[in-house]
Amino acid sequence: MGSLSVSANSSMAAERVVVISGKEVQRPVEILSATNDEFDFVTVEMKEKMDPKIFASSLRDSVSHWRQQGMKAVWLKLPIDLVNLVPAAVDEGFSYHHAEPDYLMLACWLSKTKQVLPSYATNRVHIGAFVMNDKREVLVVKESRGMFKRMDLWKFPTGFAEDGEDISEAAKREVKEETGIDSEFVEILAFGHRHEQFHGKSNLFFVCMMRPLSFVIQWQDSELEEAKRSLQLNH
Amino acid sequence: MGSLSVSANSSMAAERVVVISGKEVQRPVEILSATNDEFDFVTVEMKEKMDPKIFASSLRDSVSHWRQQGMKAVWLKLPIDLVNLVPAAVDEGFSYHHAEPDYLMLACWLSKTKQVLPSYATNRVHIGAFVMNDKREVLVVKESRGMFKRMDLWKFPTGFAEDGEDISEAAKREVKEETGIDSEFVEILAFGHRHEQFHGKSNLFFVCMMRPLSFVIQWQDSELEEAKRSLQLNH
Repeated sequence: MGSLSVSANSSMAAERVVVISGKEVQRPVEILSATNDEFDFVTVEMKEKMDPKIFASSLRDSVSHWRQQGMKAVWLKLPIDLVNLVPAAVDEGFSYHHAEPDYLMLACWLSKTKQVLPSYATNRVHIGAFVMNDKREVLVVKESRGMFKRMDLWKFPTGFAEDGEDISEAAKREVKEETGIDSEFVEILAFGHRHEQFHGKSNLFFVCMMRPLSFVIQWQDSELEEAKRSLQLNH
Repeated sequence: MGSLSVSANSSMAAERVVVISGKEVQRPVEILSATNDEFDFVTVEMKEKMDPKIFASSLRDSVSHWRQQGMKAVWLKLPIDLVNLVPAAVDEGFSYHHAEPDYLMLACWLSKTKQVLPSYATNRVHIGAFVMNDKREVLVVKESRGMFKRMDLWKFPTGFAEDGEDISEAAKREVKEETGIDSEFVEILAFGHRHEQFHGKSNLFFVCMMRPLSFVIQWQDSELEEAKRSLQLNH
Protein backbone atom coordinates (compact mmCIF):
# COMPACT_ATOMS: atom_id res chain seq x y z
CA MET A 1 0.00 0.00 0.00
CA GLY A 2 1.73 3.18 -1.17
CA SER A 3 1.37 6.31 0.94
CA LEU A 4 1.59 10.01 0.18
CA SER A 5 2.55 12.52 2.85
CA VAL A 6 -0.04 15.24 3.28
CA SER A 7 1.94 17.19 5.82
CA ALA A 8 5.49 16.84 7.01
CA ASN A 9 4.81 19.10 9.99
CA SER A 10 3.17 18.21 13.24
CA SER A 11 -0.04 19.96 12.24
CA MET A 12 -1.49 22.12 9.53
CA ALA A 13 -3.62 25.13 10.20
CA ALA A 14 -7.19 25.52 9.04
CA GLU A 15 -9.80 27.97 10.20
CA ARG A 16 -13.17 27.44 11.73
CA VAL A 17 -15.76 29.89 12.96
CA VAL A 18 -16.66 29.60 16.63
CA VAL A 19 -19.16 31.68 18.54
CA ILE A 20 -17.80 33.23 21.74
CA SER A 21 -20.17 35.42 23.77
CA GLY A 22 -22.46 35.73 20.79
CA LYS A 23 -19.63 37.01 18.58
CA GLU A 24 -18.29 34.99 15.65
CA VAL A 25 -14.50 34.68 15.72
CA GLN A 26 -11.99 32.77 13.64
CA ARG A 27 -9.71 30.50 15.60
CA PRO A 28 -7.00 28.28 14.25
CA VAL A 29 -7.78 24.56 14.21
CA GLU A 30 -5.02 22.06 14.81
CA ILE A 31 -5.25 19.30 12.24
CA LEU A 32 -3.27 16.23 13.31
CA SER A 33 -0.36 15.26 11.11
CA ALA A 34 -1.42 12.46 8.77
CA THR A 35 -0.70 10.57 5.56
CA ASN A 36 -3.20 9.64 2.83
CA ASP A 37 -3.19 6.53 0.70
CA GLU A 38 -4.66 5.63 -2.68
CA PHE A 39 -7.87 4.36 -1.04
CA ASP A 40 -8.54 7.81 0.52
CA PHE A 41 -7.78 6.45 3.96
CA VAL A 42 -6.03 8.83 6.37
CA THR A 43 -3.40 7.44 8.76
CA VAL A 44 -2.43 9.21 11.98
CA GLU A 45 0.48 7.76 13.91
CA MET A 46 0.79 9.50 17.28
CA LYS A 47 4.30 9.54 18.70
CA GLU A 48 4.50 12.44 21.15
CA LYS A 49 2.66 12.70 24.45
CA MET A 50 -0.28 15.10 24.36
CA ASP A 51 -2.87 16.28 26.85
CA PRO A 52 -5.95 14.06 26.33
CA LYS A 53 -8.32 17.06 26.20
CA ILE A 54 -6.23 18.86 23.57
CA PHE A 55 -5.96 15.57 21.66
CA ALA A 56 -9.76 15.07 21.78
CA SER A 57 -10.35 18.57 20.44
CA SER A 58 -7.72 18.22 17.67
CA LEU A 59 -9.04 14.80 16.70
CA ARG A 60 -12.61 16.14 16.45
CA ASP A 61 -11.50 19.03 14.25
CA SER A 62 -9.28 16.76 12.16
CA VAL A 63 -12.01 14.18 11.53
CA SER A 64 -14.40 16.94 10.51
CA HIS A 65 -11.73 18.34 8.16
CA TRP A 66 -11.01 14.95 6.55
CA ARG A 67 -14.72 14.23 6.18
CA GLN A 68 -15.10 17.49 4.26
CA GLN A 69 -12.15 16.47 2.08
CA GLY A 70 -14.04 13.28 1.16
CA MET A 71 -11.72 10.90 2.97
CA LYS A 72 -13.23 7.46 3.56
CA ALA A 73 -11.70 6.36 6.84
CA VAL A 74 -9.15 7.27 9.49
CA TRP A 75 -6.56 4.92 10.97
CA LEU A 76 -5.21 5.97 14.35
CA LYS A 77 -2.13 4.22 15.73
CA LEU A 78 -1.43 4.81 19.44
CA PRO A 79 1.70 3.32 21.02
CA ILE A 80 1.05 1.80 24.45
CA ASP A 81 2.82 4.65 26.25
CA LEU A 82 0.11 6.98 24.89
CA VAL A 83 -2.63 4.78 26.41
CA ASN A 84 -4.14 7.85 28.09
CA LEU A 85 -5.32 9.02 24.62
CA VAL A 86 -7.35 5.85 23.94
CA PRO A 87 -10.54 6.89 25.80
CA ALA A 88 -10.62 10.21 23.92
CA ALA A 89 -10.39 8.43 20.57
CA VAL A 90 -13.24 6.08 21.47
CA ASP A 91 -15.33 9.05 22.64
CA GLU A 92 -14.75 10.61 19.20
CA GLY A 93 -16.28 7.57 17.49
CA PHE A 94 -13.25 5.38 16.85
CA SER A 95 -13.39 1.63 17.40
CA TYR A 96 -10.55 -0.83 17.85
CA HIS A 97 -9.11 -2.47 14.72
CA HIS A 98 -6.24 -4.53 16.11
CA ALA A 99 -3.56 -4.49 18.78
CA GLU A 100 -0.04 -5.77 19.16
CA PRO A 101 1.78 -5.79 22.53
CA ASP A 102 3.17 -2.28 22.03
CA TYR A 103 0.42 -0.43 20.15
CA LEU A 104 -3.32 -0.17 19.53
CA MET A 105 -4.77 0.59 16.09
CA LEU A 106 -8.15 2.30 16.05
CA ALA A 107 -10.27 3.13 13.03
CA CYS A 108 -13.16 5.41 12.16
CA TRP A 109 -15.21 4.93 8.98
CA LEU A 110 -16.20 8.34 7.53
CA SER A 111 -17.85 7.48 4.24
CA LYS A 112 -21.57 6.83 3.80
CA THR A 113 -20.75 3.81 1.64
CA LYS A 114 -20.47 0.29 3.07
CA GLN A 115 -17.61 -0.11 5.56
CA VAL A 116 -14.71 -1.84 3.81
CA LEU A 117 -11.86 -1.55 6.29
CA PRO A 118 -9.41 -4.34 5.50
CA SER A 119 -9.62 -7.16 7.99
CA TYR A 120 -6.65 -7.99 10.19
CA ALA A 121 -5.19 -11.49 10.44
CA THR A 122 -7.90 -14.17 10.82
CA ASN A 123 -5.86 -17.37 10.94
CA ARG A 124 -3.03 -19.02 12.81
CA VAL A 125 -0.66 -21.37 10.99
CA HIS A 126 -0.15 -24.61 12.90
CA ILE A 127 2.42 -27.12 11.72
CA GLY A 128 3.03 -30.79 12.37
CA ALA A 129 6.48 -32.17 11.49
CA PHE A 130 6.87 -35.68 10.08
CA VAL A 131 10.65 -36.15 10.51
CA MET A 132 11.80 -39.46 9.01
CA ASN A 133 15.37 -40.72 8.56
CA ASP A 134 16.82 -43.18 6.02
CA LYS A 135 15.95 -46.11 8.31
CA ARG A 136 12.28 -45.04 8.17
CA GLU A 137 12.39 -44.08 11.85
CA VAL A 138 10.06 -41.22 12.75
CA LEU A 139 10.70 -38.57 15.42
CA VAL A 140 7.97 -38.53 18.09
CA VAL A 141 7.51 -36.66 21.36
CA LYS A 142 5.37 -36.64 24.47
CA GLU A 143 3.98 -33.36 25.78
CA SER A 144 4.32 -32.29 29.40
CA ARG A 145 1.09 -30.26 29.50
CA GLY A 146 -2.30 -29.90 27.93
CA MET A 147 -4.63 -32.44 26.41
CA PHE A 148 -1.91 -34.73 25.02
CA LYS A 149 -0.21 -35.01 28.43
CA ARG A 150 -3.41 -36.51 29.86
CA MET A 151 -3.70 -38.91 26.94
CA ASP A 152 -0.06 -40.04 27.39
CA LEU A 153 0.41 -40.21 23.62
CA TRP A 154 3.47 -40.19 21.40
CA LYS A 155 2.92 -37.54 18.71
CA PHE A 156 4.76 -35.58 16.02
CA PRO A 157 6.32 -32.25 17.00
CA THR A 158 3.74 -29.48 16.43
CA GLY A 159 3.52 -25.77 17.00
CA PHE A 160 2.35 -22.40 15.74
CA ALA A 161 4.15 -20.23 13.22
CA GLU A 162 5.28 -16.88 14.59
CA ASP A 163 4.54 -13.51 13.03
CA GLY A 164 5.95 -13.40 9.51
CA GLU A 165 7.31 -16.95 9.69
CA ASP A 166 7.09 -19.26 6.69
CA ILE A 167 5.52 -22.70 7.06
CA SER A 168 8.83 -24.44 6.34
CA GLU A 169 10.73 -22.26 8.83
CA ALA A 170 8.11 -22.87 11.54
CA ALA A 171 8.45 -26.63 11.07
CA LYS A 172 12.26 -26.49 11.32
CA ARG A 173 12.11 -24.27 14.41
CA GLU A 174 9.56 -26.43 16.25
CA VAL A 175 11.51 -29.64 15.60
CA LYS A 176 14.70 -27.94 16.85
CA GLU A 177 13.01 -26.44 19.93
CA GLU A 178 11.24 -29.61 20.97
CA THR A 179 13.94 -32.19 20.23
CA GLY A 180 17.24 -30.45 19.40
CA ILE A 181 17.20 -32.11 15.96
CA ASP A 182 18.15 -30.03 12.90
CA SER A 183 16.01 -30.79 9.88
CA GLU A 184 15.23 -29.57 6.39
CA PHE A 185 11.83 -29.05 4.82
CA VAL A 186 10.92 -31.50 2.04
CA GLU A 187 7.24 -30.94 1.18
CA ILE A 188 3.74 -30.40 2.53
CA LEU A 189 1.93 -33.72 2.84
CA ALA A 190 -1.55 -32.43 3.73
CA PHE A 191 -3.33 -29.50 5.25
CA GLY A 192 -6.63 -28.71 6.89
CA HIS A 193 -8.68 -25.70 7.95
CA ARG A 194 -10.38 -25.57 11.37
CA HIS A 195 -12.47 -22.78 12.80
CA GLU A 196 -13.37 -21.28 16.19
CA GLN A 197 -10.02 -22.32 17.62
CA PHE A 198 -8.73 -19.35 19.63
CA HIS A 199 -10.84 -16.26 20.33
CA GLY A 200 -12.95 -17.09 17.26
CA LYS A 201 -9.94 -17.32 14.92
CA SER A 202 -9.18 -20.21 12.54
CA ASN A 203 -6.21 -22.57 12.26
CA LEU A 204 -4.57 -23.77 9.08
CA PHE A 205 -2.72 -26.97 9.96
CA PHE A 206 0.08 -28.11 7.61
CA VAL A 207 1.73 -31.52 7.92
CA CYS A 208 5.32 -31.05 6.77
CA MET A 209 7.63 -33.80 5.58
CA MET A 210 11.08 -33.12 7.10
CA ARG A 211 14.47 -34.78 6.66
CA PRO A 212 16.68 -34.90 9.78
CA LEU A 213 20.18 -33.35 9.51
CA SER A 214 21.33 -34.26 13.03
CA PHE A 215 20.65 -37.25 15.23
CA VAL A 216 21.22 -36.32 18.88
CA ILE A 217 17.97 -35.68 20.72
CA GLN A 218 18.10 -32.97 23.39
CA TRP A 219 15.47 -32.89 26.11
CA GLN A 220 13.39 -29.78 26.43
CA ASP A 221 12.10 -30.04 29.98
CA SER A 222 9.77 -27.07 30.00
CA GLU A 223 7.65 -28.13 27.09
CA LEU A 224 8.09 -31.82 26.48
CA GLU A 225 8.28 -34.83 28.71
CA GLU A 226 10.27 -36.95 26.35
CA ALA A 227 11.47 -36.81 22.79
CA LYS A 228 12.08 -40.07 21.06
CA ARG A 229 13.02 -41.21 17.60
CA SER A 230 11.22 -44.50 17.94
CA LEU A 231 8.12 -45.28 15.96
CA GLN A 232 9.41 -47.68 13.33
CA LEU A 233 7.48 -47.79 10.11
CA ASN A 234 8.86 -51.06 8.74
CA HIS A 235 6.70 -52.86 6.23
CA MET B 1 -9.32 -24.86 26.16
CA GLY B 2 -11.38 -25.97 29.16
CA SER B 3 -11.94 -23.53 32.00
CA LEU B 4 -12.73 -23.92 35.66
CA SER B 5 -14.62 -21.27 37.56
CA VAL B 6 -12.71 -19.96 40.57
CA SER B 7 -15.49 -17.73 41.78
CA ALA B 8 -19.07 -17.36 40.70
CA ASN B 9 -19.44 -14.10 42.60
CA SER B 10 -18.31 -10.67 41.56
CA SER B 11 -15.39 -10.81 43.97
CA MET B 12 -13.93 -12.92 46.70
CA ALA B 13 -12.63 -11.50 49.90
CA ALA B 14 -9.05 -11.81 51.06
CA GLU B 15 -7.23 -9.88 53.73
CA ARG B 16 -4.17 -7.74 53.61
CA VAL B 17 -2.41 -5.70 56.25
CA VAL B 18 -2.20 -1.98 55.57
CA VAL B 19 -0.59 0.66 57.74
CA ILE B 20 -2.83 3.62 58.52
CA SER B 21 -1.39 6.37 60.72
CA GLY B 22 1.31 4.04 61.91
CA LYS B 23 -1.22 1.40 63.01
CA GLU B 24 -1.54 -1.95 61.26
CA VAL B 25 -5.12 -2.74 60.26
CA GLN B 26 -6.73 -5.54 58.30
CA ARG B 27 -8.81 -4.35 55.41
CA PRO B 28 -10.72 -6.51 52.94
CA VAL B 29 -9.18 -6.78 49.49
CA GLU B 30 -11.46 -7.05 46.47
CA ILE B 31 -10.21 -9.79 44.18
CA LEU B 32 -11.66 -9.47 40.70
CA SER B 33 -13.89 -12.30 39.53
CA ALA B 34 -11.90 -14.67 37.33
CA THR B 35 -11.66 -18.14 35.80
CA ASN B 36 -8.58 -20.38 35.72
CA ASP B 37 -7.59 -22.81 32.99
CA GLU B 38 -5.41 -25.90 32.83
CA PHE B 39 -2.35 -23.79 31.95
CA ASP B 40 -2.66 -21.77 35.21
CA PHE B 41 -3.74 -18.71 33.27
CA VAL B 42 -6.32 -16.47 34.95
CA THR B 43 -9.00 -14.79 32.81
CA VAL B 44 -10.85 -11.66 33.91
CA GLU B 45 -13.70 -10.50 31.72
CA MET B 46 -14.92 -7.11 32.87
CA LYS B 47 -18.57 -6.41 32.10
CA GLU B 48 -19.77 -3.77 34.54
CA LYS B 49 -18.65 -0.16 34.66
CA MET B 50 -16.26 0.60 37.54
CA ASP B 51 -14.44 3.65 38.79
CA PRO B 52 -10.93 3.54 37.25
CA LYS B 53 -9.23 4.19 40.60
CA ILE B 54 -11.13 1.40 42.35
CA PHE B 55 -10.40 -0.86 39.37
CA ALA B 56 -6.66 -0.04 39.55
CA SER B 57 -6.58 -0.88 43.24
CA SER B 58 -8.54 -4.13 42.82
CA LEU B 59 -6.42 -5.17 39.86
CA ARG B 60 -3.20 -4.56 41.81
CA ASP B 61 -4.47 -6.64 44.76
CA SER B 62 -5.79 -9.35 42.45
CA VAL B 63 -2.53 -9.67 40.50
CA SER B 64 -0.61 -9.91 43.76
CA HIS B 65 -3.04 -12.60 44.98
CA TRP B 66 -2.77 -14.65 41.77
CA ARG B 67 1.01 -14.35 41.78
CA GLN B 68 1.06 -15.81 45.29
CA GLN B 69 -1.18 -18.63 44.08
CA GLY B 70 1.43 -19.49 41.44
CA MET B 71 -0.65 -18.42 38.45
CA LYS B 72 1.39 -17.90 35.28
CA ALA B 73 -0.46 -15.13 33.49
CA VAL B 74 -3.55 -12.95 33.56
CA TRP B 75 -5.83 -12.27 30.60
CA LEU B 76 -7.94 -9.13 30.92
CA LYS B 77 -10.80 -8.57 28.47
CA LEU B 78 -12.24 -5.06 28.40
CA PRO B 79 -15.24 -4.29 26.17
CA ILE B 80 -14.92 -0.97 24.32
CA ASP B 81 -17.50 0.73 26.54
CA LEU B 82 -15.10 0.18 29.48
CA VAL B 83 -12.30 1.98 27.61
CA ASN B 84 -11.75 4.23 30.62
CA LEU B 85 -10.23 1.21 32.46
CA VAL B 86 -7.53 0.62 29.82
CA PRO B 87 -4.98 3.18 31.13
CA ALA B 88 -5.24 1.72 34.65
CA ALA B 89 -4.52 -1.79 33.34
CA VAL B 90 -1.46 -0.59 31.43
CA ASP B 91 -0.25 1.28 34.52
CA GLU B 92 -0.52 -2.03 36.42
CA GLY B 93 1.87 -3.71 33.98
CA PHE B 94 -0.52 -5.16 31.39
CA SER B 95 0.27 -4.98 27.69
CA TYR B 96 -2.04 -5.37 24.72
CA HIS B 97 -2.56 -8.88 23.32
CA HIS B 98 -5.17 -8.31 20.61
CA ALA B 99 -8.22 -6.23 19.79
CA GLU B 100 -11.44 -6.70 17.88
CA PRO B 101 -13.77 -3.78 17.07
CA ASP B 102 -15.71 -4.19 20.33
CA TYR B 103 -13.09 -5.26 22.87
CA LEU B 104 -9.45 -5.10 23.87
CA MET B 105 -7.59 -8.08 25.35
CA LEU B 106 -4.68 -7.27 27.62
CA ALA B 107 -2.26 -9.70 29.22
CA CYS B 108 0.22 -9.75 32.08
CA TRP B 109 2.85 -12.48 32.41
CA LEU B 110 3.38 -13.35 36.11
CA SER B 111 5.73 -16.32 36.03
CA LYS B 112 9.52 -16.06 36.10
CA THR B 113 9.70 -18.64 33.29
CA LYS B 114 9.89 -17.66 29.62
CA GLN B 115 6.77 -15.85 28.40
CA VAL B 116 4.63 -18.32 26.43
CA LEU B 117 1.38 -16.43 25.88
CA PRO B 118 -0.29 -17.99 22.83
CA SER B 119 0.04 -15.81 19.76
CA TYR B 120 -3.05 -14.36 18.12
CA ALA B 121 -3.82 -14.77 14.42
CA THR B 122 -0.77 -14.15 12.24
CA ASN B 123 -2.13 -14.78 8.74
CA ARG B 124 -4.86 -13.68 6.38
CA VAL B 125 -6.37 -16.17 3.94
CA HIS B 126 -6.55 -14.73 0.42
CA ILE B 127 -8.35 -16.67 -2.29
CA GLY B 128 -8.33 -16.54 -6.08
CA ALA B 129 -11.26 -18.22 -7.89
CA PHE B 130 -10.71 -20.03 -11.18
CA VAL B 131 -14.34 -20.40 -12.36
CA MET B 132 -14.55 -22.45 -15.58
CA ASN B 133 -17.67 -23.70 -17.34
CA ASP B 134 -18.15 -26.73 -19.62
CA LYS B 135 -17.12 -24.65 -22.66
CA ARG B 136 -13.79 -23.96 -20.95
CA GLU B 137 -14.71 -20.30 -20.57
CA VAL B 138 -13.17 -18.65 -17.51
CA LEU B 139 -14.76 -15.90 -15.42
CA VAL B 140 -12.59 -12.76 -15.27
CA VAL B 141 -13.07 -9.28 -13.82
CA LYS B 142 -11.53 -5.81 -13.85
CA GLU B 143 -11.07 -3.92 -10.61
CA SER B 144 -12.20 -0.34 -10.13
CA ARG B 145 -9.49 0.61 -7.62
CA GLY B 146 -6.01 -0.23 -6.44
CA MET B 147 -3.00 -1.55 -8.31
CA PHE B 148 -4.94 -3.68 -10.82
CA LYS B 149 -7.13 -0.72 -11.86
CA ARG B 150 -4.02 1.16 -12.98
CA MET B 151 -2.75 -1.89 -14.85
CA ASP B 152 -6.11 -2.29 -16.67
CA LEU B 153 -5.90 -6.07 -16.38
CA TRP B 154 -8.47 -8.83 -16.58
CA LYS B 155 -8.00 -11.05 -13.53
CA PHE B 156 -9.70 -13.83 -11.54
CA PRO B 157 -12.02 -12.82 -8.70
CA THR B 158 -9.99 -12.58 -5.50
CA GLY B 159 -10.58 -11.57 -1.91
CA PHE B 160 -9.90 -12.22 1.75
CA ALA B 161 -11.62 -14.81 3.91
CA GLU B 162 -13.60 -13.33 6.77
CA ASP B 163 -13.28 -14.35 10.42
CA GLY B 164 -14.05 -18.07 10.78
CA GLU B 165 -14.71 -18.52 7.06
CA ASP B 166 -13.54 -21.65 5.26
CA ILE B 167 -11.41 -21.33 2.12
CA SER B 168 -14.15 -22.88 -0.04
CA GLU B 169 -16.83 -20.57 1.41
CA ALA B 170 -14.66 -17.50 0.89
CA ALA B 171 -14.17 -18.42 -2.77
CA LYS B 172 -17.92 -18.90 -3.32
CA ARG B 173 -18.73 -15.62 -1.58
CA GLU B 174 -16.16 -13.58 -3.50
CA VAL B 175 -17.31 -14.92 -6.86
CA LYS B 176 -20.93 -14.13 -5.95
CA GLU B 177 -20.12 -10.64 -4.61
CA GLU B 178 -17.96 -9.64 -7.55
CA THR B 179 -19.92 -11.14 -10.43
CA GLY B 180 -23.32 -12.40 -9.21
CA ILE B 181 -22.38 -15.92 -10.32
CA ASP B 182 -23.20 -18.87 -8.02
CA SER B 183 -20.45 -21.48 -7.96
CA GLU B 184 -19.33 -24.60 -6.15
CA PHE B 185 -15.89 -25.42 -4.84
CA VAL B 186 -14.06 -28.23 -6.68
CA GLU B 187 -10.48 -28.27 -5.37
CA ILE B 188 -7.43 -26.22 -4.43
CA LEU B 189 -5.08 -25.92 -7.40
CA ALA B 190 -2.13 -24.24 -5.69
CA PHE B 191 -1.24 -22.12 -2.72
CA GLY B 192 1.53 -19.78 -1.61
CA HIS B 193 2.72 -18.00 1.52
CA ARG B 194 3.77 -14.33 1.45
CA HIS B 195 4.99 -12.22 4.34
CA GLU B 196 4.98 -8.60 5.48
CA GLN B 197 1.71 -7.97 3.68
CA PHE B 198 -0.45 -5.95 6.10
CA HIS B 199 0.85 -4.53 9.38
CA GLY B 200 3.58 -7.19 9.36
CA LYS B 201 1.12 -10.09 8.94
CA SER B 202 1.36 -12.86 6.32
CA ASN B 203 -0.99 -13.96 3.54
CA LEU B 204 -1.82 -17.52 2.53
CA PHE B 205 -3.13 -17.35 -1.03
CA PHE B 206 -5.19 -20.31 -2.29
CA VAL B 207 -6.17 -20.70 -5.95
CA CYS B 208 -9.55 -22.46 -5.93
CA MET B 209 -11.04 -24.37 -8.86
CA MET B 210 -14.75 -23.49 -8.99
CA ARG B 211 -17.64 -24.75 -11.14
CA PRO B 212 -20.29 -22.14 -12.08
CA LEU B 213 -23.90 -22.91 -11.12
CA SER B 214 -25.45 -19.79 -12.70
CA PHE B 215 -24.58 -17.85 -15.81
CA VAL B 216 -25.92 -14.30 -15.52
CA ILE B 217 -23.23 -11.80 -14.59
CA GLN B 218 -24.34 -8.93 -12.34
CA TRP B 219 -22.27 -5.76 -12.18
CA GLN B 220 -20.93 -4.73 -8.83
CA ASP B 221 -20.21 -1.05 -9.33
CA SER B 222 -18.56 -0.31 -6.01
CA GLU B 223 -15.81 -2.84 -6.28
CA LEU B 224 -15.41 -3.90 -9.88
CA GLU B 225 -15.41 -2.07 -13.15
CA GLU B 226 -16.50 -4.99 -15.23
CA ALA B 227 -17.06 -8.68 -14.83
CA LYS B 228 -16.73 -10.83 -17.88
CA ARG B 229 -16.83 -14.51 -18.68
CA SER B 230 -14.53 -14.21 -21.64
CA LEU B 231 -11.06 -15.65 -21.60
CA GLN B 232 -11.42 -18.73 -23.78
CA LEU B 233 -9.03 -21.54 -23.08
CA ASN B 234 -9.52 -23.54 -26.30
CA HIS B 235 -6.72 -25.79 -27.34
